[in-house]
Amino acid sequence: MSGEKKTLWSGRFSEGMAESTLAFTSSLSLDRCLARYDVLGSMAHSRMLARQGIISPEDGEAIQDGLRKIMAKIEDGTLPIQERLEDIHTNIEYMLTDMIGDAGARLHTARSRNDQVVTDLRLFMRDATLDTLDAIGLLQKAIMDQASDNLETILPGFTHIQHAQPVTVGHWLMAHFFRLQRDAERLMDAYRRLNISPLGSAALAGTTYKIDRLYTSSLLGFDAPCPNSIDGVSDRDFVAEYLFAAALTAVHLSSLCEELVYWSSSDFGFLEMADACSTGSSIMPQKKNPDVAELVRGRAGAAVGDLVNILTTLKGLPTAYNRDLQEDKPAVFATYDRLVPCLRMTAAMVATVRFNKDRMLAACKDGFLNATDLADYLAMKGLPFRRAHEVVGAVVRYAIDNRKRLEELTLSELRRFSDIIDEDVFSILPVERCVARRTSIGGTSPEVTPMQLSQGMSVLRRQSDFIDRERSRIEKAFRSLM
Amino acid sequence: MSGEKKTLWSGRFSEGMAESTLAFTSSLSLDRCLARYDVLGSMAHSRMLARQGIISPEDGEAIQDGLRKIMAKIEDGTLPIQERLEDIHTNIEYMLTDMIGDAGARLHTARSRNDQVVTDLRLFMRDATLDTLDAIGLLQKAIMDQASDNLETILPGFTHIQHAQPVTVGHWLMAHFFRLQRDAERLMDAYRRLNISPLGSAALAGTTYKIDRLYTSSLLGFDAPCPNSIDGVSDRDFVAEYLFAAALTAVHLSSLCEELVYWSSSDFGFLEMADACSTGSSIMPQKKNPDVAELVRGRAGAAVGDLVNILTTLKGLPTAYNRDLQEDKPAVFATYDRLVPCLRMTAAMVATVRFNKDRMLAACKDGFLNATDLADYLAMKGLPFRRAHEVVGAVVRYAIDNRKRLEELTLSELRRFSDIIDEDVFSILPVERCVARRTSIGGTSPEVTPMQLSQGMSVLRRQSDFIDRERSRIEKAFRSLM
Amino acid sequence: MSGEKKTLWSGRFSEGMAESTLAFTSSLSLDRCLARYDVLGSMAHSRMLARQGIISPEDGEAIQDGLRKIMAKIEDGTLPIQERLEDIHTNIEYMLTDMIGDAGARLHTARSRNDQVVTDLRLFMRDATLDTLDAIGLLQKAIMDQASDNLETILPGFTHIQHAQPVTVGHWLMAHFFRLQRDAERLMDAYRRLNISPLGSAALAGTTYKIDRLYTSSLLGFDAPCPNSIDGVSDRDFVAEYLFAAALTAVHLSSLCEELVYWSSSDFGFLEMADACSTGSSIMPQKKNPDVAELVRGRAGAAVGDLVNILTTLKGLPTAYNRDLQEDKPAVFATYDRLVPCLRMTAAMVATVRFNKDRMLAACKDGFLNATDLADYLAMKGLPFRRAHEVVGAVVRYAIDNRKRLEELTLSELRRFSDIIDEDVFSILPVERCVARRTSIGGTSPEVTPMQLSQGMSVLRRQSDFIDRERSRIEKAFRSLM
Amino acid sequence: MSGEKKTLWSGRFSEGMAESTLAFTSSLSLDRCLARYDVLGSMAHSRMLARQGIISPEDGEAIQDGLRKIMAKIEDGTLPIQERLEDIHTNIEYMLTDMIGDAGARLHTARSRNDQVVTDLRLFMRDATLDTLDAIGLLQKAIMDQASDNLETILPGFTHIQHAQPVTVGHWLMAHFFRLQRDAERLMDAYRRLNISPLGSAALAGTTYKIDRLYTSSLLGFDAPCPNSIDGVSDRDFVAEYLFAAALTAVHLSSLCEELVYWSSSDFGFLEMADACSTGSSIMPQKKNPDVAELVRGRAGAAVGDLVNILTTLKGLPTAYNRDLQEDKPAVFATYDRLVPCLRMTAAMVATVRFNKDRMLAACKDGFLNATDLADYLAMKGLPFRRAHEVVGAVVRYAIDNRKRLEELTLSELRRFSDIIDEDVFSILPVERCVARRTSIGGTSPEVTPMQLSQGMSVLRRQSDFIDRERSRIEKAFRSLM
Repeated sequence: MSGEKKTLWSGRFSEGMAESTLAFTSSLSLDRCLARYDVLGSMAHSRMLARQGIISPEDGEAIQDGLRKIMAKIEDGTLPIQERLEDIHTNIEYMLTDMIGDAGARLHTARSRNDQVVTDLRLFMRDATLDTLDAIGLLQKAIMDQASDNLETILPGFTHIQHAQPVTVGHWLMAHFFRLQRDAERLMDAYRRLNISPLGSAALAGTTYKIDRLYTSSLLGFDAPCPNSIDGVSDRDFVAEYLFAAALTAVHLSSLCEELVYWSSSDFGFLEMADACSTGSSIMPQKKNPDVAELVRGRAGAAVGDLVNILTTLKGLPTAYNRDLQEDKPAVFATYDRLVPCLRMTAAMVATVRFNKDRMLAACKDGFLNATDLADYLAMKGLPFRRAHEVVGAVVRYAIDNRKRLEELTLSELRRFSDIIDEDVFSILPVERCVARRTSIGGTSPEVTPMQLSQGMSVLRRQSDFIDRERSRIEKAFRSLM
Repeated sequence: MSGEKKTLWSGRFSEGMAESTLAFTSSLSLDRCLARYDVLGSMAHSRMLARQGIISPEDGEAIQDGLRKIMAKIEDGTLPIQERLEDIHTNIEYMLTDMIGDAGARLHTARSRNDQVVTDLRLFMRDATLDTLDAIGLLQKAIMDQASDNLETILPGFTHIQHAQPVTVGHWLMAHFFRLQRDAERLMDAYRRLNISPLGSAALAGTTYKIDRLYTSSLLGFDAPCPNSIDGVSDRDFVAEYLFAAALTAVHLSSLCEELVYWSSSDFGFLEMADACSTGSSIMPQKKNPDVAELVRGRAGAAVGDLVNILTTLKGLPTAYNRDLQEDKPAVFATYDRLVPCLRMTAAMVATVRFNKDRMLAACKDGFLNATDLADYLAMKGLPFRRAHEVVGAVVRYAIDNRKRLEELTLSELRRFSDIIDEDVFSILPVERCVARRTSIGGTSPEVTPMQLSQGMSVLRRQSDFIDRERSRIEKAFRSLM
Repeated sequence: MSGEKKTLWSGRFSEGMAESTLAFTSSLSLDRCLARYDVLGSMAHSRMLARQGIISPEDGEAIQDGLRKIMAKIEDGTLPIQERLEDIHTNIEYMLTDMIGDAGARLHTARSRNDQVVTDLRLFMRDATLDTLDAIGLLQKAIMDQASDNLETILPGFTHIQHAQPVTVGHWLMAHFFRLQRDAERLMDAYRRLNISPLGSAALAGTTYKIDRLYTSSLLGFDAPCPNSIDGVSDRDFVAEYLFAAALTAVHLSSLCEELVYWSSSDFGFLEMADACSTGSSIMPQKKNPDVAELVRGRAGAAVGDLVNILTTLKGLPTAYNRDLQEDKPAVFATYDRLVPCLRMTAAMVATVRFNKDRMLAACKDGFLNATDLADYLAMKGLPFRRAHEVVGAVVRYAIDNRKRLEELTLSELRRFSDIIDEDVFSILPVERCVARRTSIGGTSPEVTPMQLSQGMSVLRRQSDFIDRERSRIEKAFRSLM
Repeated sequence: MSGEKKTLWSGRFSEGMAESTLAFTSSLSLDRCLARYDVLGSMAHSRMLARQGIISPEDGEAIQDGLRKIMAKIEDGTLPIQERLEDIHTNIEYMLTDMIGDAGARLHTARSRNDQVVTDLRLFMRDATLDTLDAIGLLQKAIMDQASDNLETILPGFTHIQHAQPVTVGHWLMAHFFRLQRDAERLMDAYRRLNISPLGSAALAGTTYKIDRLYTSSLLGFDAPCPNSIDGVSDRDFVAEYLFAAALTAVHLSSLCEELVYWSSSDFGFLEMADACSTGSSIMPQKKNPDVAELVRGRAGAAVGDLVNILTTLKGLPTAYNRDLQEDKPAVFATYDRLVPCLRMTAAMVATVRFNKDRMLAACKDGFLNATDLADYLAMKGLPFRRAHEVVGAVVRYAIDNRKRLEELTLSELRRFSDIIDEDVFSILPVERCVARRTSIGGTSPEVTPMQLSQGMSVLRRQSDFIDRERSRIEKAFRSLM
């Protein structure tokens, strides 16, 4: 930013406008990460052209040799980039033509920048989706491990941030696990709509060449070619869908981190974050600031923003290709680059957090967390549920006045409020019993939570199978392509 | 709004605060549409309670009789509402207890407002999702019908809102069809995660009663009970997921309507909207304003806004129940109430639009839409693709200078630029031939677009089967329940 | 929602399409609240027409008599609405023509629906803005009152939700006050751009009649007519600007309510909400759920969503009038209807909250909140600041190991770490001294916070002057108009 | 992205966690652009410390010498960055201490990272705001210049994208000018709330040192110190406010660009973009794609997204410092880096666009753009406005049937519809007359639009004065500081 400008604007824009335009429209700062996919797409396209006799076998060979050399440069990080060429695709095509001459100028036969770029982006997003799924799984695994270790660790369950009923840490953690399962499912569903080949859509109307779109689709490991070429070049649903799945995942992480941040405060004191996930204070060595959890929580905003970005950009945009669509990349790359580390860091936090069991149990003693259990006891003995509530309300008031907990009242004290109360009441009042007796499906009792863990195990196996299958399919396709 | 107030604020809020609080926290203005689902949920719950022996058979009968009477009132629109009761659920429970006494007070045994409300909302959203799918299908059908009628109707295909290559109306319309297919698929995927029963999660921790969650789940036509009770009461993913699917659908509609609005302008003149879908002007009887299309386009903003609403509300919210979650309803009800009519009106517009074939064809004559075809012709004769482009560039420049179209140039004129051009060039230059020869999969040729239509037919059948199956399953469940 | 439909869509949309279109395009469900403003706008317009001789004095009189009768009906709630007329403006015009015949048909001379509707909306928004300002002031006043009462009430100040340094309740509350001051300023700034008259812009191009736009502008209490008629009918910046100011205010409220919710939990226990602002539990009479605060916090999502709505709707929309602009109303009406009660309820909460001084003070004793003060002490004695930090770190570690607070260490214990520590150290360690000594401008010391209060008083006076002045100006304009 | 991973997650996160944490929490990739401001802030702080006697004159000198050397390195781009230090502020402090020893360790006396970082960000945003204002002015100037050149150039004015009434290019362009004026005003309003010094707020509670906040505020060119230290470290309103102003500006640009894109299509043909602002096609040399305008339009999405980002991040965040606040930077830097070039490129487009006057005028001949004028003619002769409309409706219908324009009808033809029509009707029907006679304030007549231009000139002067005054004040402050 400069301070020396002199205002009352004259036509300063006229000089060097063409260069400004180039800088303005260039996507090079963004699309370098597509280089590898661009080469792969061109490999598949040129193989098909040769097989269909659209280019000669010799040209086909020359192109593929050239592309292999370019890929080698990409992989060892030595690909030269010419800034004056507007994008990575043009860079690669020019380099190829420099290397092999006329044959290179034949590569773009029966193809357009419009189908080429979106093919590259889908290939990138496919890996990005699998990486995201992998990072989700990592966090789910960390959650499951902690849950297994804490099936009987009791803490107050909250409604309205008020103590409500005791639950176990394992039970609470598995609530986060199942959120993440839905996140993973959404990504796997989206993957089906993502893994479709637009290659061969050409500019927008298809091509007059006798191309084989099934072949290129299969070479690249796609499930099928897209059925409509106009849709092929303009569809960015896969970007929006990834961004939504990511935004909801980020919101889920913000929720978990909100709990980690508060519960690690001295006021709750339920847990302590590992040193490696906290930052300290030079002056207060005992202090651990949950910076990582705060940053994860804060980054949910960017995820929602990126989703809004793409939806607003697409709003009112006609079909086929408009240059506005170039703006799909910043949002989706930023979200991917942000979300995977957030998932990994949250996994690290969960894996290494230490629960203060005594403090959590102590917190359960106050607040009459067993009031519902007393009401259920009365209702089971025949009192209508709403009446039972009234009776317990009176008992609690009495207990408050006498500074006692419910389990500290004597039987005769209790019977003042209802004569159906018996000695057996004392077996249902301890916090541990409140937890143990909630054995309904999905309930907090250690008797039933293992069911969640085994359900979780099969969920994780399903997700990991999906990732492994798709990754090996992609690797196989790419290996045989290069 | 009043103008008489006197500022410099004193404690005006103190009077009537309790009433303000009631008005502020009441959800009655919103949740009346849940009444029917609330009764159904209570029917299932009470049947289960009786079957498990948690309430007596007599109480079970009494509750169910009462609920049936309440349902009758709901259906004939005579349900009295007490505004001082905070929500529809409380209204129904009070009414029941008024009718049947103590038995009514037993209905809420082993249940909490937390699991009850979200069960009702899921039942509502299930119908809303099916209705939305139905309306999407209606629009897809209208698109398919018009596409079938216009497989050979030619218009200019656009890139950058510039004429690029000729395409058919059928081809263009099917691009919109496949967008909607993805929208429908997203809703069907979301349905799997929606159709899960939270009933029995109780306040957050499950219950000590021996309830049968599988039974209530099945009575209500759900696929399964949710596996974790904390997640059961706090999960609002299904709201976010519907709102995202709806937002993307609304964005798709905004894109189609943008095209309808512009193409019906006198400058394009490609199409004419039916009178019923337009508004006129008393002064310009020839004028038709595409108000419906403009409103559909404009309403995409609200859909994106509602999605942001729920994501922002959920951001940073801890698990289990927080009252913030009450705010899921305004957004989701508003989007549903807006989107279904938008889909229906768009279907009506598409079904009744009249295409000006002559005008569209005339628009194809200018703009050298066959330039790519000439380049392909040269490339097929052996010129490298990038060279062929340069030659055609020179030809077009020459044609512009001589105010001719490409097809109006003589062979000798053409051969000045390349001697590989022969008489057969004239067979590829007419616009109709440009269209006819794009026979690659998904291309615009009338030879291959029927493939899209038959693919479309099977897509529609799959969607309609889904809707019919789920609707009949729901009806059957509800019939046997009441 | 119906369950009986039979899918595989046929052309069901054809019947009754015109009615559907009417229902779809009608804005009557929304714009009734504009009735009053519509009459006022027409009063001003017809007065001007008569004054300029565009209509006769008799017609002018007749129109104004008619409008006065219509206003009377609006004010006593007896205005009949014909649903088949698309909006409130048409309803009023038809009613007038029914009443007074031909003269009524002259009212719309030199006016268009386009300038009429946006004039009405600006009149509405002007009152809405003043009401919002009023409600902000009410909350600021409640904050100031509590702050005055709690200038010496100490609580732990937080960074990263960890105890950092002690502050006073008054100081903390005034942080919220100054946020709201900025909110109020933003609204007052926006008001300048809002209070501009578009009347006379006609359809988009102005009119051939010799109208007097300065006169109608002044009659309606506007500051000036807009300078460009195309901008006049398409400008919705004032909607976006109100929605942004409202969204940021709502976010500010969500922040305050987050603190109220957590601090009223038993884990913090810093404060207790008034019964009237809480909801109880029949079973746990001691329990107070902060529902009001949770709802206020949750409603920030809707505010952000409404802002996104208008921005997305406006994105890519050409100038002049497009029907999409009708969609400005739902968002702005919803936000106004939501925000003012949120402000009032938050004022009520703040005014009636009870602080647990003992609990807050106790919370300050732990956590070494005076560590910075010890470091400052050392630095003031000459140790470089970063060194001082290291020394205090060692002291704190020692204190932790010996389960003591800093102020419980003996001088000789302290001097083990630095021999520049003297007896006077004990005068700076008590929490009360930490607070008292932070006398830098804006600091937490009761010595300097009164400065904030007096600054707050003059802020409040400025805001209330603005509201009073504008309200009385509007009232005067309207009184002389009717 | 790697393909070789082996799933079923084990605790892979454990290794190297501390480094991951550092990488995750580091803001170095973002905050380098704050380096200059960080040095300036430290200069002001150290001067004040010395002046107040909090550090010795010698230490003050040493610090200032060191900072000057660091600034020199920043300015010539040789500042070494240590990636292992988490942010630019730490880098600079370490470098200083390396250079000057103990004195450097005294710089942070009476300051905290919390007030330091937000001071730097405000200094940056101040320049960013002035740069944005400058770029807005540049575009406004380009608009004014074109408007001056086209005060009598006629094109069809649109409502509903349908021809409505003729307007001039100058009039249409000035509609965009006044939108941008409001954008500039919003930024200038925001500047007042931005240009406030948080320095001296320390961690959150102020400091025990006798600092002089008025002095540092004035040294840095701020208007005043913030009145509350808790607010001082947590206020990010200035970020949200800039992002909103930017988002609305971006939406305004999207609207202008939508018009440029469509009007440059061959279907409208109203204008031609300069070559430098378009991209061509190798194959269609006549074709100019409006890529720049499309990209500007598309980037509105990112601006709205960035605004949502900050609002969502702030939602529910308690006061004082939370690490989430670090996430304010990506959004605000990205929007600034995007918006200024968008404004400049749009200025270039507007300055160099060529209007096809013949084509625009021809477009006015069809569509009965003078129908309103005929109605006004009748109404001026005494027919009630609504009746006049009906008569004209009949005339237009007749004209359509007879394939004539209104001005081509004979007087006797016209009189069939109303005998108040006279010879003088022909003087009001030509398109040029329709334009010329709309002389109401803000109307399209070349007689009154110069008023808009002169209003525009004084607006521009006001804006440029603001920029010049603030820039020179900042320069002066910084010069005397260094």
